[in-house]
Amino acid sequence: MIDTHGKHGTDTKARWEDVVAQKKKLQAEALAIKIESLPLSIAGSITALTSPDEITSKILSGELTSHEIVGAFIQRAREAHEQTNCPGLTSACTPSLTEILFEEALNEAKKLDKYFSEHGKLVGPFHGVPVTLKDQFDVKGHDSTIGYVGRSFKPAEEDAVVVKLLRSFGAIIIAKSNLPQSIMWCETENPLWGLTTNPSDKDYTPGGSTGGEGVLLALDASMLGWGTDIGGSIRIPSHMMGLYGLKPSSARLPYRGVPVSTDGQEHVASSIGPMARSLSMIHAVTEALISAEPSKLDARCAALPWKEDTFQEVQSRPLTIGVLYDDEVVRPHPPVARVLRTVAEALKAAGHEILEWDAKLHPECVAVMDQYYTADGGQDIRDAVLEGGEPFIPHVERLINSGAPISVYDYWALNRSKVELQQKYMEKWDSIRSPKTGRVADVVILPPLPHTAVPHTACRWVGYTKVWNFLDYSALVLPAGTVTQDDISEPWEFAPRNPKDEWTGKLWQDQKQKMADLRLPVGVQLVCRKLEEEKLLGIGKVVDEVIRESRAGHK
Amino acid sequence: MIDTHGKHGTDTKARWEDVVAQKKKLQAEALAIKIESLPLSIAGSITALTSPDEITSKILSGELTSHEIVGAFIQRAREAHEQTNCPGLTSACTPSLTEILFEEALNEAKKLDKYFSEHGKLVGPFHGVPVTLKDQFDVKGHDSTIGYVGRSFKPAEEDAVVVKLLRSFGAIIIAKSNLPQSIMWCETENPLWGLTTNPSDKDYTPGGSTGGEGVLLALDASMLGWGTDIGGSIRIPSHMMGLYGLKPSSARLPYRGVPVSTDGQEHVASSIGPMARSLSMIHAVTEALISAEPSKLDARCAALPWKEDTFQEVQSRPLTIGVLYDDEVVRPHPPVARVLRTVAEALKAAGHEILEWDAKLHPECVAVMDQYYTADGGQDIRDAVLEGGEPFIPHVERLINSGAPISVYDYWALNRSKVELQQKYMEKWDSIRSPKTGRVADVVILPPLPHTAVPHTACRWVGYTKVWNFLDYSALVLPAGTVTQDDISEPWEFAPRNPKDEWTGKLWQDQKQKMADLRLPVGVQLVCRKLEEEKLLGIGKVVDEVIRESRAGHK
Repeated sequence: MIDTHGKHGTDTKARWEDVVAQKKKLQAEALAIKIESLPLSIAGSITALTSPDEITSKILSGELTSHEIVGAFIQRAREAHEQTNCPGLTSACTPSLTEILFEEALNEAKKLDKYFSEHGKLVGPFHGVPVTLKDQFDVKGHDSTIGYVGRSFKPAEEDAVVVKLLRSFGAIIIAKSNLPQSIMWCETENPLWGLTTNPSDKDYTPGGSTGGEGVLLALDASMLGWGTDIGGSIRIPSHMMGLYGLKPSSARLPYRGVPVSTDGQEHVASSIGPMARSLSMIHAVTEALISAEPSKLDARCAALPWKEDTFQEVQSRPLTIGVLYDDEVVRPHPPVARVLRTVAEALKAAGHEILEWDAKLHPECVAVMDQYYTADGGQDIRDAVLEGGEPFIPHVERLINSGAPISVYDYWALNRSKVELQQKYMEKWDSIRSPKTGRVADVVILPPLPHTAVPHTACRWVGYTKVWNFLDYSALVLPAGTVTQDDISEPWEFAPRNPKDEWTGKLWQDQKQKMADLRLPVGVQLVCRKLEEEKLLGIGKVVDEVIRESRAGHK
Repeated sequence: MIDTHGKHGTDTKARWEDVVAQKKKLQAEALAIKIESLPLSIAGSITALTSPDEITSKILSGELTSHEIVGAFIQRAREAHEQTNCPGLTSACTPSLTEILFEEALNEAKKLDKYFSEHGKLVGPFHGVPVTLKDQFDVKGHDSTIGYVGRSFKPAEEDAVVVKLLRSFGAIIIAKSNLPQSIMWCETENPLWGLTTNPSDKDYTPGGSTGGEGVLLALDASMLGWGTDIGGSIRIPSHMMGLYGLKPSSARLPYRGVPVSTDGQEHVASSIGPMARSLSMIHAVTEALISAEPSKLDARCAALPWKEDTFQEVQSRPLTIGVLYDDEVVRPHPPVARVLRTVAEALKAAGHEILEWDAKLHPECVAVMDQYYTADGGQDIRDAVLEGGEPFIPHVERLINSGAPISVYDYWALNRSKVELQQKYMEKWDSIRSPKTGRVADVVILPPLPHTAVPHTACRWVGYTKVWNFLDYSALVLPAGTVTQDDISEPWEFAPRNPKDEWTGKLWQDQKQKMADLRLPVGVQLVCRKLEEEKLLGIGKVVDEVIRESRAGHK
């Protein structure tokens, strides 16, 4: 998929390929360390754990040590790496790992065990919990490449604020994971680490940009993953891989120490957020981080305490829930529509009220936000790629050549348009009310994407996720079902509304049998307004329970 | 002071002057309405009131009606207008009023009286409180000129959010007030309404950009004024006119419906804030507005409740107070330095701890923020002036020609520099600790300006205020003293550090006798961090009481 012929002459080409070879050699060495393996059945029971309490209770009871736990996850990560390796695809093909911290992680685990045996108590609520990070979070002594060859061998001097806080809770960083060149894509490929493939099928993407985390979590190779999201990059791989993923409002969790493409473009704000196999993990880590007062460590964070009252209150009453089935740009595939409908019906049956939501203002929001990404004419990303000398991946090449730079005067006008649209969306939210109670929606639920995981380079429309970045609302993806054989026979004849709708419609036609055979995961997306993370997580708990009961009932 | 010859040819010149003539004619008519006057002694006792409770208690007791109260203030505003009129200075010279809402205000007052007599209760906590607004706040049916001729006869279609909320509290808008062309100046002059002069001396400025409010409040012609502040525009006239003025963090109070020059330049954020003759008024209106949940009306507002605990807590214990005497760019005049020293000593005597603050990072902050104001090469302001055809005031002409436009790519780099400096200032704040208690400063106090009111066009350095806009911290100015005859004999020999220091130093030498004779007010500025308005107002109350006791003791 990568144009390895590049455009930068033989000298440069040789150089970037040398850098890649050197990075991969070091990675292979770090991967090869000896680990004392637990019996497979025990290791498997450890890596199947999904919440921090499950880990800490086993440590407190003396059943397991941190070293055993971390060892089990490391072993699993290594197997995952081998299992999803795909040499037949391209020479640069790779699974999900980038920086390997296995040895450091095992040493950290020993320290935790020593602390526990000496003090008889835990370091913190995440004592012994193995964590992986998108290769964008600074970890002292390791690169943060964000998919650029030119950022190799420039190790971070300090941990990102969120990494510091996680460590202070007792969590252990075991590895970093793959992402697309520039991070600006819903799939995962770069010329440094290659293409990350979906464990279900090597021809499919796990999504992106936090694709490496998606794979690691889905394969039980990590308990808690960290990603960033400026258009859906946490939510898309969560949806495709059957995971939970939270994109908070940008000022809620500390971004400091997380380098990013087009840094300084503050107008469509990127957020950091957690991904996991359980909502309890997402909730626990979000509450712990907010309670640690990140605004005292990162000047961009809002000084907002964790609002437990709000978290509880929404779990105690019937909810008013807006449902958006179709954004009127790209029609969701039958399994995506069916899962959302099933969830809405189950929520209604559980006593909640469903309001119909509409896609008004969504096209305007997307049109304005697209101008931000390339307001510099692509210079930031172009320079970062040219620095390393590697080729562009096709998606990035299209992106950076999609617009000429605009003036600061026009940029200010763009900001005014943004503020107007944010205001209008606020007014829209307030205008859609329950005919029974007069209440506005507590939450809006909608598809995370119009489709499940798809073949590489087929992901073309992220309008269902990106609009919430533009509004800086809080959004959560929950796993809610899978593609079934029944979906295949759903009617799927329509006049496409636009080329993206046509592309995506054909994708279902071509891939539906395979998608059903693979039983690909389908998520739902929940959205609350700006800085309403407690409300979102509380509602998430309600919806998650309804989904799980409903799915159990259908088994 | 205005170059009335302009640069735009005879046709255009005729046009803008016609617009001005028409605006002034309509103003004169609106000013001339008949008011039933109260006896002077009663009217004077009304306009001397400073807090909303004083107004509402007189209404509740039946002692006065809203109509009488509003009438008294309107009468006083008209007198102030006449008193400070200065036809000898330039033909365009004017005092502080721009849009006149006297008739509407009296009608509103009648409605309030009717409501009270019918229901026996008040509309809200500001029932009958007369309010004036910088000519930048939208009031339905009236222009918001922000000092541009070209914005004349384009009445707002809707009240600004803050105006709606104030009206819902029972407040009555009686007039709008003057500001400089473009609002980007610490004085008050524009070709539409002319030059606003200081009531103490027509050759002196009352400060700016919220200069009209400064004059009206100082002359008891309003109880509550509203300004905006992107570099000191609330705090500077408050300091020069002996008033209280609050610049909150930008996301705390609703800016919506307040048009501004270089709108969309969101990187040095402008704030709206109140000005008054008492801290109780500032506190009451800020608490009332925050409690009204402005984030539900303005998408840019932070959803932060009023934190009464914090407001109370800082009033219950010894405070740790940083004091900055000199920003190392422009030395404060002797009365400004003496007043700050007196306040610090009085606070120490009252049991609070004083830490020395320093000006580290201030020059870097100012250097970065100055690039924002003209990042568009002055196009926004230039276009707004050209639209009306009037001449530039010299300060604005210098400003818009002070830099070429920069690219969006460089603009993003500027944002990164800003975020780095904000982070460094946060770390600086955390690093300056009490040697006794280890606590960091609760508040920093410093001069609002290096000087008091000065002759027109002499205000050259607003580094003491603008740095807090760059950081988006909360800042409050309190009246703290006046220039005295003793100040004149203070030693004032030094080697100037730069041309601005030299200019300002010479200003004292030249003007000190007059400044002392006029007993010009001197304020102090209190600063807390981002979104710490409750803390700032609580500490403000403590400091204000110490200042008032200390001043009473010296009488």
